[in-house]
Amino acid sequence: MKVAIIMGSQSDWDPVMKAAADTLADFGVSYEAKVYSAHRTPEALFDYLKTLPEKGVQVIIAGAGMAAHLPGVIAAKTILPVLGVPIPSSPLQGMDSLLSIVQMPGGIPVGTLSIGKAGAKNAAIMAVSILALQDETLEKKLMEYRQKQAEKVLAVSLET
Amino acid sequence: MKVAIIMGSQSDWDPVMKAAADTLADFGVSYEAKVYSAHRTPEALFDYLKTLPEKGVQVIIAGAGMAAHLPGVIAAKTILPVLGVPIPSSPLQGMDSLLSIVQMPGGIPVGTLSIGKAGAKNAAIMAVSILALQDETLEKKLMEYRQKQAEKVLAVSLET
Amino acid sequence: MKVAIIMGSQSDWDPVMKAAADTLADFGVSYEAKVYSAHRTPEALFDYLKTLPEKGVQVIIAGAGMAAHLPGVIAAKTILPVLGVPIPSSPLQGMDSLLSIVQMPGGIPVGTLSIGKAGAKNAAIMAVSILALQDETLEKKLMEYRQKQAEKVLAVSLET
Amino acid sequence: MKVAIIMGSQSDWDPVMKAAADTLADFGVSYEAKVYSAHRTPEALFDYLKTLPEKGVQVIIAGAGMAAHLPGVIAAKTILPVLGVPIPSSPLQGMDSLLSIVQMPGGIPVGTLSIGKAGAKNAAIMAVSILALQDETLEKKLMEYRQKQAEKVLAVSLET
Amino acid sequence: MKVAIIMGSQSDWDPVMKAAADTLADFGVSYEAKVYSAHRTPEALFDYLKTLPEKGVQVIIAGAGMAAHLPGVIAAKTILPVLGVPIPSSPLQGMDSLLSIVQMPGGIPVGTLSIGKAGAKNAAIMAVSILALQDETLEKKLMEYRQKQAEKVLAVSLET
Amino acid sequence: MKVAIIMGSQSDWDPVMKAAADTLADFGVSYEAKVYSAHRTPEALFDYLKTLPEKGVQVIIAGAGMAAHLPGVIAAKTILPVLGVPIPSSPLQGMDSLLSIVQMPGGIPVGTLSIGKAGAKNAAIMAVSILALQDETLEKKLMEYRQKQAEKVLAVSLET
Amino acid sequence: MKVAIIMGSQSDWDPVMKAAADTLADFGVSYEAKVYSAHRTPEALFDYLKTLPEKGVQVIIAGAGMAAHLPGVIAAKTILPVLGVPIPSSPLQGMDSLLSIVQMPGGIPVGTLSIGKAGAKNAAIMAVSILALQDETLEKKLMEYRQKQAEKVLAVSLET
Amino acid sequence: MKVAIIMGSQSDWDPVMKAAADTLADFGVSYEAKVYSAHRTPEALFDYLKTLPEKGVQVIIAGAGMAAHLPGVIAAKTILPVLGVPIPSSPLQGMDSLLSIVQMPGGIPVGTLSIGKAGAKNAAIMAVSILALQDETLEKKLMEYRQKQAEKVLAVSLET
Repeated sequence: MKVAIIMGSQSDWDPVMKAAADTLADFGVSYEAKVYSAHRTPEALFDYLKTLPEKGVQVIIAGAGMAAHLPGVIAAKTILPVLGVPIPSSPLQGMDSLLSIVQMPGGIPVGTLSIGKAGAKNAAIMAVSILALQDETLEKKLMEYRQKQAEKVLAVSLET
Repeated sequence: MKVAIIMGSQSDWDPVMKAAADTLADFGVSYEAKVYSAHRTPEALFDYLKTLPEKGVQVIIAGAGMAAHLPGVIAAKTILPVLGVPIPSSPLQGMDSLLSIVQMPGGIPVGTLSIGKAGAKNAAIMAVSILALQDETLEKKLMEYRQKQAEKVLAVSLET
Repeated sequence: MKVAIIMGSQSDWDPVMKAAADTLADFGVSYEAKVYSAHRTPEALFDYLKTLPEKGVQVIIAGAGMAAHLPGVIAAKTILPVLGVPIPSSPLQGMDSLLSIVQMPGGIPVGTLSIGKAGAKNAAIMAVSILALQDETLEKKLMEYRQKQAEKVLAVSLET
Repeated sequence: MKVAIIMGSQSDWDPVMKAAADTLADFGVSYEAKVYSAHRTPEALFDYLKTLPEKGVQVIIAGAGMAAHLPGVIAAKTILPVLGVPIPSSPLQGMDSLLSIVQMPGGIPVGTLSIGKAGAKNAAIMAVSILALQDETLEKKLMEYRQKQAEKVLAVSLET
Repeated sequence: MKVAIIMGSQSDWDPVMKAAADTLADFGVSYEAKVYSAHRTPEALFDYLKTLPEKGVQVIIAGAGMAAHLPGVIAAKTILPVLGVPIPSSPLQGMDSLLSIVQMPGGIPVGTLSIGKAGAKNAAIMAVSILALQDETLEKKLMEYRQKQAEKVLAVSLET
Repeated sequence: MKVAIIMGSQSDWDPVMKAAADTLADFGVSYEAKVYSAHRTPEALFDYLKTLPEKGVQVIIAGAGMAAHLPGVIAAKTILPVLGVPIPSSPLQGMDSLLSIVQMPGGIPVGTLSIGKAGAKNAAIMAVSILALQDETLEKKLMEYRQKQAEKVLAVSLET
Repeated sequence: MKVAIIMGSQSDWDPVMKAAADTLADFGVSYEAKVYSAHRTPEALFDYLKTLPEKGVQVIIAGAGMAAHLPGVIAAKTILPVLGVPIPSSPLQGMDSLLSIVQMPGGIPVGTLSIGKAGAKNAAIMAVSILALQDETLEKKLMEYRQKQAEKVLAVSLET
Repeated sequence: MKVAIIMGSQSDWDPVMKAAADTLADFGVSYEAKVYSAHRTPEALFDYLKTLPEKGVQVIIAGAGMAAHLPGVIAAKTILPVLGVPIPSSPLQGMDSLLSIVQMPGGIPVGTLSIGKAGAKNAAIMAVSILALQDETLEKKLMEYRQKQAEKVLAVSLET
């Protein structure tokens, strides 16, 4: 297993964090998706984080909404790279979770992606780009993915 | 000791969190002020929190800036009432810490006060109002404080 | 009766402030829910506030939308702890009520919770944490509630 | 006396609310400037408001910072027109006081002017425009003021 | 005719600006509602404004969305009091129109009400409060309206 | 004369709008800089706008702060392309003038540049790019300017 | 062909960028609408941009959502005037794309229009106003368009 | 060389991006710091990016202000992980650069850190955490760094 996807609540899974899992699956990257809350289950979260190195996990993707502490709290307990996904689950449309994730004080970084589903997908791709530093097959897949993205855009023909 | 004041960084003390301590001192409420970081020293923070009940602490005041997780992380590890003070230490002027503190998800509340020094002072007064539920002397002091506040306002004479 | 829930308009009740009442009921805490407006019925509000001490009320929860003055106006007329719930009833999605409640000037605190239903629930839990300082049964219930919250999170199994 | 200028704190006077007084003086409109707090001295405020009709006051100008409840609380206790001036006294630069003043719920209006000194000046001019409905001399002065404003702009010669 | 209601587009009428008209009708205040655009029909707007004094108009209510220049442009061409209503017709939810109306530079005031329907209603009530300065019947109606508002709030009985 | 630079107040000239004039001068484009207010001198503004076609003006650059109506009001009275520069002259740091300029309703466009001095400079460059459509010398100068910009960046050597 | 309309994604076409095309068609201005991504197909974008001068294109309209880099990236590779349309495709309602487009640093301007469909329409009208500098027929059409806009507004009759 | 630090302007170096370089130096990670503009020198930027793989660069740190396109434009031309640092160089205090960097559309991720100097430092630490996946010495240093951070916090003694 290479990537751990952690989210603060079951409701974060579909349709947001599932996009990270699906994207990893598309790249053939093994992952595990778990629900742990920074506030409700801190000990269980910390215990889980301890198991990650031996499982071979190299990147953690963490998504949360509102005062989204989960990514930062995880980053505080691991030296693995942590990628954060702000989830727009309050009336403030994700501005609260974006600031709660990205504005980490000096010393404990969280690499933050865009709000919502696009961010979850991008967290997966960024995880792939990190894993690809040690994996030529993955590097090749990433280049192909980019190629396909470009081809999709180029194939568009607008009905004007 | 009745109140624990915890802040994420030494730079939060003066001129912000010190206002909470000074206000508690004005009311004759014993307190302890400590620096613990939710991210840099989570274990030490959790150990410290465990000592609070036996010390007789009844209210926790927590201040932090940027992605201010400290109040919420404390609230997750105690059932004492937690009051949060957003500190304006980033270019976003405290909007980041306000949202990171106040927008806690359902289940783990942080009673949030205003940004900066006024909020630190108000956290102390709110702590006093909670302690006064069991302490008639404090209740009387609080009523006198209100009276003095009113008198100060009424004594103002504008030079027009 | 231990808690007074006051809101500015009948439309604040369902689905927002009702969550505070339901949560208090779950904890077996007696409460009273009332509609008083800081602007339309200030005298009736002040008269009502005067009755709270003799009823044994120890915490006031106040919710309001837009330029949400109700929690602050209540806090000005009582020394009981006041918890504020911003209600997202305008096009600004609750940012207006959040700032109107939390940014109280030094001297008159309102402990502010998150915007909307989650905030109403959290106001109730914070009231319970204040009452539990004098009530061991409630303290135990609060610890059990936390335990159940944790168990719910841990029981989640994502369909991946 | 035609206009009452009320502000929440002595620090609101110079350089903000004084601009309202100076502008009224320029128009020869008699006014009274007072400090009353919606939160610290509500009764004294309400007593003062009761004296205004017999003094002949026709417009109230109210300025406040942070969670600026003063204009709305005044508007709730009088049927005189109330003009509100947001004062930028917190790290949020007056956005908090603007929303706390302008976003009044239906039924109790506050006519809100711009943040800070420009708003204080404009509150005075709006008061003059209301008084001018019954006072031809004032109407003439207002037209002359507009004329002078225009002349000042037209007299500008840029050094290019 | 006492009040002119002007809006920038027909789509501003229902359900926003109509609330101003309905409220004026409730008070028995005669009004005229017109669509003029500050940008598309400036001359016709200016011509219309010139007719208002002879018609006896004493207050102008102006509503507009997006970069809402209409209230300010009207205020620049009249010395009658101008009340502005921000209309939430863009993705920015009325924050754009609020700032475009309220942040008038020193010299040309627009008394701004809350965003949307509540603001339209409040503009009408503020117009009534200005007209009531010269009309005892209207003053009495305004006091009765306040009374009824209070009674409605007090009649609420929550199903708890 | 090819470009008219219009600003709402003398204080907008230095250091903001002067940057537009200086940039035009660098390109050898003749311009005229004037102070006219949309609110204080609308007639003089409209009269001035009428003189622009005969002077050969092809682009108008308009800068204003706060509720910045000037660019939109100009755009309503001419069919020349109008470029808007938001000026950060209020506590809201130019967010008010940005939204007041850019959020024009459909039908009357203002091409808006960035807030402050950078925007004034960019308005001049955009004016040059429009004039260059009919002027090969200017087109060449613009390409050279781009080249010099690139060279400046490439010449930077950081002291690491 | 006079105008190139470029957008970052097929989903930007209907109902946003299509409004630019329809408006150009109404003016009889020939255009081409293309989907190119600043991030996914930069080379194809740059190749396309190189073909524009020989096709006679004089203005480029570029629309994009989220971190909307497309207009600025285009502006960096051409000296033709570039007009930008922010598209509200994220939970932040277009505030992200507005700031990403309008806040260009000094040297590379993008003339930015309002968020969404109104902005797309206005980009087309601004393109027409630029083309009209060299085309009297288009100038006349633009004046007629303005006239019709005014007539539409003046024909409105509200049912009061 | 393991890390490339790229910034849009020389003024971004001190005091912001230099913090990234200093932090990398503290960890003994070799880096190169360069100024390239996404808009002024795109070709030179793209040429530089092509040299990075052969130099052994594994992570790119990119900082920019205002409409900060640099990190996203880099991410579009490489499959290396790209970390973005928003620089607060406009009146909007970095909110513009934060949104321009973090809100990347699906497919091209930028891992975004906090605004300003803290973010530059954190970008370096995140780069170290990525490099540490293949480098046990670095992994140990990172753990020691965390340890020292904790010790610094624990050594604070407030003068109360």
